[in-house]
Amino acid sequence: MNEQIQTELKNLLNNRFSTSESTRANYARGEDTFDPILSKAVVFPETNEEVSKILGLCNKHKIPVVPFGTGTSLEGNVVGNDKGITMCLEKMNKILSVNVEDFDCRVQACVTKEQLNDYLREDGVFFPIDPGANAAIGGMASTSASGTMAVKYGTMKSVITGLTVVLPNGDIINTGGRTKKTSAGYNLTNLFIGSEGTLGVITEIQLRLSPIPESIMSAVCHFKTLESAVQTAQQIIQYGVPIARIEMLNKDQMEISINYSKLKDIEAVPTLFFEFHGSDTSNQENIKVVEEISKENNGSSFKWAKDLQERNKLWKARWDVYYSVKALINNGRVYSTDVCLPVSKITECVNFAEEQTKKLGLRAPMVGHLGDGNFHVLLPYDPTQKETYKKIRDFSDLLIQKTLKLNGTITGEHGVGLHKKSYLIKEHGDNIPLMQSIKKTIDQNNIMNPGKIFDLN
Amino acid sequence: MNEQIQTELKNLLNNRFSTSESTRANYARGEDTFDPILSKAVVFPETNEEVSKILGLCNKHKIPVVPFGTGTSLEGNVVGNDKGITMCLEKMNKILSVNVEDFDCRVQACVTKEQLNDYLREDGVFFPIDPGANAAIGGMASTSASGTMAVKYGTMKSVITGLTVVLPNGDIINTGGRTKKTSAGYNLTNLFIGSEGTLGVITEIQLRLSPIPESIMSAVCHFKTLESAVQTAQQIIQYGVPIARIEMLNKDQMEISINYSKLKDIEAVPTLFFEFHGSDTSNQENIKVVEEISKENNGSSFKWAKDLQERNKLWKARWDVYYSVKALINNGRVYSTDVCLPVSKITECVNFAEEQTKKLGLRAPMVGHLGDGNFHVLLPYDPTQKETYKKIRDFSDLLIQKTLKLNGTITGEHGVGLHKKSYLIKEHGDNIPLMQSIKKTIDQNNIMNPGKIFDLN
Repeated sequence: MNEQIQTELKNLLNNRFSTSESTRANYARGEDTFDPILSKAVVFPETNEEVSKILGLCNKHKIPVVPFGTGTSLEGNVVGNDKGITMCLEKMNKILSVNVEDFDCRVQACVTKEQLNDYLREDGVFFPIDPGANAAIGGMASTSASGTMAVKYGTMKSVITGLTVVLPNGDIINTGGRTKKTSAGYNLTNLFIGSEGTLGVITEIQLRLSPIPESIMSAVCHFKTLESAVQTAQQIIQYGVPIARIEMLNKDQMEISINYSKLKDIEAVPTLFFEFHGSDTSNQENIKVVEEISKENNGSSFKWAKDLQERNKLWKARWDVYYSVKALINNGRVYSTDVCLPVSKITECVNFAEEQTKKLGLRAPMVGHLGDGNFHVLLPYDPTQKETYKKIRDFSDLLIQKTLKLNGTITGEHGVGLHKKSYLIKEHGDNIPLMQSIKKTIDQNNIMNPGKIFDLN
Repeated sequence: MNEQIQTELKNLLNNRFSTSESTRANYARGEDTFDPILSKAVVFPETNEEVSKILGLCNKHKIPVVPFGTGTSLEGNVVGNDKGITMCLEKMNKILSVNVEDFDCRVQACVTKEQLNDYLREDGVFFPIDPGANAAIGGMASTSASGTMAVKYGTMKSVITGLTVVLPNGDIINTGGRTKKTSAGYNLTNLFIGSEGTLGVITEIQLRLSPIPESIMSAVCHFKTLESAVQTAQQIIQYGVPIARIEMLNKDQMEISINYSKLKDIEAVPTLFFEFHGSDTSNQENIKVVEEISKENNGSSFKWAKDLQERNKLWKARWDVYYSVKALINNGRVYSTDVCLPVSKITECVNFAEEQTKKLGLRAPMVGHLGDGNFHVLLPYDPTQKETYKKIRDFSDLLIQKTLKLNGTITGEHGVGLHKKSYLIKEHGDNIPLMQSIKKTIDQNNIMNPGKIFDLN
């Protein structure tokens, strides 16, 4: 990046253009296992037009651009580019409109899930996509995120009805719209969702909201074995109970969470966290079914979260799982797997993961959004210990192999990033040429987050 | 299409290649307002490999291909091509697999919604996307269809998790998979859904099914004015009642349906058809809320469909709406509008449609999937009466203009076809260059259903 371009960017953005080493280091990676890569500069646009000008300039000079939100991604999706710039959208954090009567809103890319829900609280509606981190909604769109409530409310793919995207050539386009459905031309909205910043920069998101349910009830149920916990979840889904969350934590993760989040009155054994959203009557009815299924699998009797505070503490502990594992090792990192399977195959796959980590002598806390067939093994390690990392990688390879055999996918919600490019070839090798040709058409100079998801030949 | 190509196709397909005028006429258009266009030949492949060979051949010789399912599309999506062939998939009508425990199945493109549901009946699951016609599931995927139950169960976009697609160059690819969610690379599945056969031929569809609810209750409520019926629906949605269907028929349509479907004990006034899916208790609870809202809007007391037979008759009448209107005029056609709006804007738009059709002296039966903000005006006409058609077209233009002003979309579920190309420019002009470039990348010789959705420059 020569001086002329730097001057142009500085003229455009003033102090929102930075080449200081500390800033570049702050935006050099997400919550992933990669070593940081410092981009040449970091820019902080405030408007669609600024994003457009920056991309237009970078496209002209073939300078790579890495879009960056809150940096909570897990697969190396936002690792910097030493020949390019990182574009942090944190100044685009405005809630642009809320239409309570239509259950929809429009936000800029760096509005976070908590910021939006705080804002909406008094309106009786909420944004139901709930990943662990307090992620930016633009970032969540980019990785097609989901989280604990997808079993009831769907994923980013199902709640986004429109986007504003700035294309690599600087064009600003609006896809989709405000209606619940449309058949008007190609579904560009869903092409950008999950494209991890490789096709353009998502700057605005049109979202569907949900009414806050009349009644919310949370409960915890303990199990003697992980298998019986997982089977319980599997049966609840197969029974068709409309549950809002059904989260599994294995023994190891329970121990870690109890320490980290100072949970009381809760045992360090395989556990399911439940949440029911509905009317009082329908919740009671569903709880009865779930309790029965749990009992049949030798689950303990339910422990209820009595009030909002206790409920929030419970879910906060669930959200903090990643950080609780990370805190185990000084300067440690966490390698998180993210496979997702047909519901009937989860028990087999979770069992496999337990066996293999034991065999390899790895500490393996696990959490799962079992309602979706999605679970994570969170493997903590010291990056200076190459051997542990190698074992983790071996385990990950085995898990992917097993998952694909069971008709699962290599990633339920974290995306591909740098980390899973070889796994993507295993799952979708026959599709990658088409993905590549779409990429080349939209981003002729390969400036958008190059090297992520797949390599170009 | 020269003789050599005809010979090659004949060698490949034997009597599943036809150039007879009657066959070509049978597949020359769908249920639309266009004059039939006869393709040079019609082919009936039976396997993915045959589809691949046909496309490969046509691509080499730049021969247009129009994919064809049951021919129930409404916007000219399957009108023939006088320089090309029509590829009818009716021989690809097998249900390939059903996994009840995972609520999923895989079907070939020409399995119809009724065929699938008949097959599934004893398994306790069903396919919940319900357009009026007994359409082919591949066709429903191609137009991103939905219908009466989208308010609860979503659209084709939300129930399809994977596809087999044959690309214009003959490549056979598998997109997505069997899991409820995935973040593995670009969402190609949703690129093909709604692409109306312009990017390739969808030959297999992986679908999510739903458990048959414990209790289903149907009811009918009459209103003095269309406005109060529409407002009732709007309020029910805004209240967040989890209803499975909420269908509006205006006075005119009620008269027509009562005659055509021989309905008894039902008045020819603006009417809402309701259906509730859930447990007995939750249905009772939701019905109470809906009855109250209806009463507040001066609705009649509910009339219940007492048994399955009566319920089926009610919904059969609803499905037959299109044919009931078509039967009004000998050799008549029906021009169906298909706008979809944010729920808060439906009343204004339906009122507008009523006023304008009155002003123009048009007979205007209306039906609406009001839970989604989607409604259709079904305008019958005699194709020899050019003046009526002109008036209808004027009305359609006004309705589209109004819809776009109210943040609506030009098509909720029928697609663009030949009919709405100019409307698509009004809604998504800024997107069309991107759609075109994707089309050109995937279909370099523009053989796939050329001239549909948009023109190429």
